[in-house]
Parts: sequence; C-alpha cells; structure tokens
Amino acid sequence: MKNEKITARETDFGKWYTDVLKAARLTDYSSVKGCTILEPNGYALWEMIEKNLDQMFKETGHQNVYMPLLIPENLLKKEGELVEGFAPEVAWVTEGGNKKLEERLCIRPTSETLFSDYYAKVVKSYRDLPLKYNQWCNIMRWEKETKPFLRSREILWQEGHTIHETREEAEQEAKQMLEVYERFFKDYLAIPVITGRKTEKEKFAGAEYTLTVEALMQNGVALQSATSHFFGDKFARAYDITFKDRENKESYPYQTSWGSTTRMIGALIMVHSDDFGLVLPPKIAPVKACIIPIGDSSLVREQVEKIKQEFKERGISYVVDDSEKSPGFRFAEAEVKGIPIRLEIGERDLKEGKITIARRDTREKLEYSLSSHFMDDVEELLDTIQKDMYQKAKENRDSKTFTAKNISEVEEILDKHPGFIHAMWCGDQACEEKMKEIKGCKSRCIIEENKISDSCVVCGRDAKYHVIWGIQY
Amino acid sequence: MKNEKITARETDFGKWYTDVLKAARLTDYSSVKGCTILEPNGYALWEMIEKNLDQMFKETGHQNVYMPLLIPENLLKKEGELVEGFAPEVAWVTEGGNKKLEERLCIRPTSETLFSDYYAKVVKSYRDLPLKYNQWCNIMRWEKETKPFLRSREILWQEGHTIHETREEAEQEAKQMLEVYERFFKDYLAIPVITGRKTEKEKFAGAEYTLTVEALMQNGVALQSATSHFFGDKFARAYDITFKDRENKESYPYQTSWGSTTRMIGALIMVHSDDFGLVLPPKIAPVKACIIPIGDSSLVREQVEKIKQEFKERGISYVVDDSEKSPGFRFAEAEVKGIPIRLEIGERDLKEGKITIARRDTREKLEYSLSSHFMDDVEELLDTIQKDMYQKAKENRDSKTFTAKNISEVEEILDKHPGFIHAMWCGDQACEEKMKEIKGCKSRCIIEENKISDSCVVCGRDAKYHVIWGIQY
Repeated sequence: MKNEKITARETDFGKWYTDVLKAARLTDYSSVKGCTILEPNGYALWEMIEKNLDQMFKETGHQNVYMPLLIPENLLKKEGELVEGFAPEVAWVTEGGNKKLEERLCIRPTSETLFSDYYAKVVKSYRDLPLKYNQWCNIMRWEKETKPFLRSREILWQEGHTIHETREEAEQEAKQMLEVYERFFKDYLAIPVITGRKTEKEKFAGAEYTLTVEALMQNGVALQSATSHFFGDKFARAYDITFKDRENKESYPYQTSWGSTTRMIGALIMVHSDDFGLVLPPKIAPVKACIIPIGDSSLVREQVEKIKQEFKERGISYVVDDSEKSPGFRFAEAEVKGIPIRLEIGERDLKEGKITIARRDTREKLEYSLSSHFMDDVEELLDTIQKDMYQKAKENRDSKTFTAKNISEVEEILDKHPGFIHAMWCGDQACEEKMKEIKGCKSRCIIEENKISDSCVVCGRDAKYHVIWGIQY
Repeated sequence: MKNEKITARETDFGKWYTDVLKAARLTDYSSVKGCTILEPNGYALWEMIEKNLDQMFKETGHQNVYMPLLIPENLLKKEGELVEGFAPEVAWVTEGGNKKLEERLCIRPTSETLFSDYYAKVVKSYRDLPLKYNQWCNIMRWEKETKPFLRSREILWQEGHTIHETREEAEQEAKQMLEVYERFFKDYLAIPVITGRKTEKEKFAGAEYTLTVEALMQNGVALQSATSHFFGDKFARAYDITFKDRENKESYPYQTSWGSTTRMIGALIMVHSDDFGLVLPPKIAPVKACIIPIGDSSLVREQVEKIKQEFKERGISYVVDDSEKSPGFRFAEAEVKGIPIRLEIGERDLKEGKITIARRDTREKLEYSLSSHFMDDVEELLDTIQKDMYQKAKENRDSKTFTAKNISEVEEILDKHPGFIHAMWCGDQACEEKMKEIKGCKSRCIIEENKISDSCVVCGRDAKYHVIWGIQY
C-alpha cells in the first residue's frame, strides 16, 4: 500500500521531503535557478496561512500596506549593520527601459529601509504613533543552496513593521507578535514550538535583539520558523525619524519588525507528513474532506448529494472524486494530498445505515452511523484530528529533547540522533563556535527557564544563559 | 464646507485626482522613482478587490499559483512579438550575491513565458487539459511618466493564464473572463463598461486578439480597465508545448491570459469621487459605515454600543469616531475617506427615537426611526447607494457618448469635451493614425453592434468595423 513514488523517511529524509512535494503537487522547479513554482495545492496552503494569520494581525491592530519592490542603493546603505548583513545576498537591478541606471536598485531582501524612509516623512508627533503595519509580498535573497519552502532565492512572506513612542511599547509589540506566531503554530499548524531570544551571533542584522519561534522536525532537525525583532532606535537614528514627544521635545521612536514565510509549509510537511504523502491539520487544510462514491447506485448518488449539501451548509470545504479510477487508487490520491478525512460512500455500508470515514493522520477507518448528528460527528472528528496531530508532534518533539551538561554529553546525544538540547552557556561566542563543530549544532534560542547547571556546557566557566541548541535546516 | 485640501474637479481634474489620493490617504510617493506606496486605506481597497474578484475566478474554475519574479533573458526571447513589445520597458537584474550574472534576468512585465515554460513540462495529454491558473503578484514596467494607480513602474495585479485542447474552448475562456470583469465592474465597482476587441495596433504583443473592458471617467477620458487575450497556438509553438490529442496525435494547445491591476482603484476614484473626497460603492468599501457619537451622554453611549453590536452581527464593517474633534470635523473626515454611510448619534435625535444617516454619494442627510427594522433599513440604504452610484455613472457616461460620421464631427465633439465616440472604420491603420492626430483620440475597441454608417469616419471608404474611440489615460 505504500506510495511507490515516495522514498521512506527512514531511508532518506531529504529525498522523502522532495518526493512528498512532488507527489502532492505542491511545487515544481522552474527554469529560474533557485526559484520555485507554487502549484495550486502549494499555493492553496499559502492562502490558508495568509488568511488566518492576517486575521490575527488585524485583531491585534495591524494594517496592511504595500512598499516598493526595489530599494535604491543609497537608501539601503543608511543603516550599516543591515547592509553588511544583506549586501552579500541581494540581487541588483542595473538596467531599466534599455538604459543603464544611474543608481543600482536592489530587490528587497526585507523592507526596514523603505518603512523607515516612509516613517521619516509621516511621523511628526507622538499623536502619529504607533503605526502598526504589515505587508504580504515577495522578497529576494541570492542563496547558493536552495530547497523548496526551506531556502530559496525568491520567498513569499509577510513582514510586519511597527514604530512606537516608547521603548517599552515597542518591546511589548515584539513580544506580542512572537506570541501570535506561537499561537498560530499551535492552533492552526498543530506544531508545538519553543520561543526565546537569539544570541548576538544569530540575531537579525541591525536588531537590538531577535525573538524566534523554533520548531523540531520529525527527524530531530530544528527549523527557525518565524522571528520578531526589536530595533531600539537604531533605524530612527540612521533614517532620521524624529517626533515631537509629550514634552514637545524631538525624540527618536522605537521600531520592531516580524516575519514569517512559506517556510511554514516546509515545517508543516516535515512535522506531520508520512510515507504515504502529505498529512495536513484540518484547520489549515484547503480541502477538509474527500468524498469517494463507491459504485454507481442511485442510493450512493443520493447520499453523496446529501452530504455535499450538508458540507456546503456548514462551510466545510470538500472535493468529490467520482472519477472512473478504482476506489483504492482514489483513496491513495486523497491520501497523498493530505486531505484530513476521506468519506467512502458505498452501497453495502449505506444499507446498514453507515459510512466509513478514514482519518488521514492515523489512517484508521472508522464507521459512522447516518444519524441526525452525523455532521456533528464529522466536525468533532476534524477537531479531534487537529488536537491529536498537535499531541503527536509534541510527543515526538519531547522524545527528541535532551539535556546536556558538557560537550561529551552533547556529542553522545547527537551521535544517536539530532534533537533539541538544553544546555547552559557562558555567553562567549567562542563557545558557540565550539558547539557548532559538533555536526553544526547551533544555538536555537535563549530561554528564560529553570537552569540546568551553573556551568557552561563548553568551557565549564560560569553560565549566564539557558540555551536550546540543535542542528538546523 | 468644501475640503480645502482638494482642488475642485472643474479647476484641474488631474490635480483633483492626486489631491483625493492624498486627502483620503490612499497612497504616498516613495523614494523609488515611479513606484508608489499603498497606505492602509489604499491597500484595503486592493484587498477588497482581490477578495471578490478571486472568488469569481474560483467560481469559474480557476486555481491560484505562483511563478517566479524573474525571467531569464533566453526564456523571454522565445516568443518574438512579446519580446519586441516588452523589451523596451523591462528592468534587468544583472548582479546577484556580489557577482555579475552570466545571463540577465528581467523582472516579469507579465508571465506568459513562465507559464508556457511550465506547461511545456506538465502538459502531456488531452487529459491534462485545460489548466486554468491565476496569480496575484507584482510586475514591473519601466514607464517614463507615472501617476499613482494609472501608470507606475511596479504594479500589483492578477494575471490569469489558461491552456486548452481546442481553439473554441480557449476563445470561450477569453470571452468568459471578459464577462467576469464586466460583471465585477458593474456589481462591485458600480462602473458601467464597454467591452469589445482591440484593433491590431492596440492589441497585446503576442496575442491573436485582445478583448478589453473600457470605462469612461467623469471628465470624459477613457481608461482601459482590464484585458483578456487569446493567443491561438503562438506560445505553444514558440515554447514547444504539445500534447497527445484524442486521436493520439501530437498537437499544439491554445492559450489565453487576462489581467487587471490596481488601476481599477484609479477608475473607482475618477468615476465616483467628488470635491469632498473619495466616494466608494458600498460593496467595495473596506468600511461601510462610520458611527459618530455626538456628545457624551449615557443615552448616546448605549445606542452606539447597541448599533456596534448589530453591525457586528450582520457582518457589516464599521468604524466609530469618538475622538474629541468637533462633529463637523469628524463628518468631513468620514467623507474624505469615502465611507458610504455616516451615522450621527446625538441625544436630541435619540430622544425622538431617531438617528440621522448621511449618504456619502449624494451627501443627503436622512432620518431613520429606531424601529425593529432599523438594521434592515441600513442594509437597504447600502444597496440603494450601490445601485444609485452605478446609475449615476451610467448617466454620466451616456451623456458623454457621441456618434460621428466624419472627421469634422469628431473634431467638433472633442473641441467641446472628451467622451466615447461611436464611428465607423475601414480597418486601415493609416486612418487610426489620423484619428490620433485629433487630441490623441484612439480606438478603444471594436464592438459588434448595429453600425452607424457605411463609410469610414476618416477616409470615407467602405467601413468594416464599428469602433468606439476616445482620449485615453
């Protein structure tokens, strides 16, 4: 029954990942190096993410805007750290309308510069603050190695940019948006995450600090899944953004930015999917149910019509596969696409007053009686699947979360399998570099929790931070 | 009472347009030449357009996808006419990751090339057809003169791309999408449009023919507002897209593309708005109602809460302006933003069991009694406004639509005011060029209607086509 087009996870996790993308028809390679085509199934997932996350942004008082795609070199260069961080990986437009341009323009790798330039124009008084903006757009980073959804040259993402009167308010915003991401991962993607602060080495170029959402894939590899940055007044000073404060004094405002990308789809796949294809949590699945009539009796046809009607009334998205392919073939197709439930409507079952529903996550077949509360049962099943998927992902993560007190313990853990490793750190970058020598193990984030020991996992000196480490995508 | 920041239409229509953009805070200029910032009010309009038009695309069986932003020069060059049409106005990326690229990449001016390249890979049999795709994205055309929403270097748009087994089916698709646009303009934007076919001179580069949606602005100037192209098998031949047909023969499929842009927002403004600011049809207005409490009595506060609750229950978007500004000031602010209705909640009215509602379109103040059907009345008013705005726009268009039998009649009409001119044409480009000498009057489209006369408006020879002409933006 295993899908022949999909390599088993145990055999080759990387190959499995790209096989799933292909079998579920999420993406295809394009003739443009490092850029991916999002096919209908892939883009529909992005639409679901966009719709729900956007709702959460609006509920927390954010407005969508749109800034230009191109950034003049001069404007980009105003904030030194940001340029240093991004200059090596931008794409430059140097010709337009058959002429060489006087100034190079880069395709936005991120838009702090454009938002800051705009703020400098429109922010005049504390009455103009805060401005809480977001934009859904494409960005470009000239990566050398690419992998669909995880790292590519062109990326679809959202970037929030806010500006505030006080440091406290801006810090509160950065924290709030981290929590929004955390909630979105939990409630919609069914992915448990760890949140914390990036080390100096791993933070965003130009940020005072970076908060991060870190997820663990089935194979124990960590994925940075969304970030929220506090900039202090760095950009305000670089871009000359000032406002008249409540004491009528010219002051610098404080900024944040926060972003998440189609990488979330990569996380969805690597956390939940299996050797039969995609597995999607119901709340983010573009299609919740696949209805498969078996045989062509009038009894079956009538029941299919009835169920379609009920799905419509409840606003549950569905597809019907009544093609001439064999039931088994159609079951496998619904399965590979990750549709959360599959309703098998056959005459024999119907005569006994029941319908078989297959759960995609557990692949169990369940019998449901066609009672007056049938649709309630279906909705309850979708809820159960959502919860169970989160629980399973959490158990997997917990089973791959370890504690280490010294380097040899770290080596011992990573020799067996990758995972999250809790370990103390002195704060010295040299120790961070040392950790990286062990299979590329990097600091994921600093958390505020009960510490494990008093001494740094690498050097044994006094520890300052409780850090979670892991091998990253 | 007139808004001082807005030049009167009569004084200077062009200045009025940019004043409205600014006063309603739809857009701002950016530091990137020819690129516009969409501020929250402007982007919210685009979101409303996107949401409703996307729904219509999905109902007609289209799926959203995403193709790369960049097109390798080699790929772009495969279809000769398209390159010739677009090469003079594209932006080229020549450097990436600190290196000069081996091949220039242009920022997509439109994506026929990328879709064709993709089709060549995935279309193998007639069973794979049709593919009916759409994407919402940004494109770039290196325009010299720009004006927000009407012509800019970066444009937000949607581009539909479909591929079919037969010529008939593809032609049907191109026609269907023209009708979708026409319906959207009528039902949502409250804009009456004329649809027809572009002349050879005005058609899209690479198309066999182009269908177009043409709208007339308040000042009588025409705006090409959406287009739908039939490509025949031109792209299939250029990009080597073939499929095994029902007779098992390798055949070339037929393609279409169709697009509309943020230019629709420009049309919305120039068709409906007035000297007091923006006027938005209720069905496309991001905010349908502005609730303005007058005074701060508990009676007023309670009523505001009650109405908010009722708006929420009916899913009607609203804002409350309870700031400390004077009522008159707040009225003007709701007005400049184009919010369709303004509810003035004052103690005196409430004591008489009524509420004053101001219509934005007519600026009338109406009294509504606070009966059990108050909310039904509000919804009915919104419907009425939608219908009345369409009617008014249609009357304006009809009053600026003329018929001409010869050049001197055309001159006479255009000497007075611009408008749509119905006139016959022999089909000779020389005559089209002659017409253009009269204040830049261009063919808008060829329509299939009862003809006006037998002879060409320019040369007097036998006429082949009934054409609508006009001065364009």
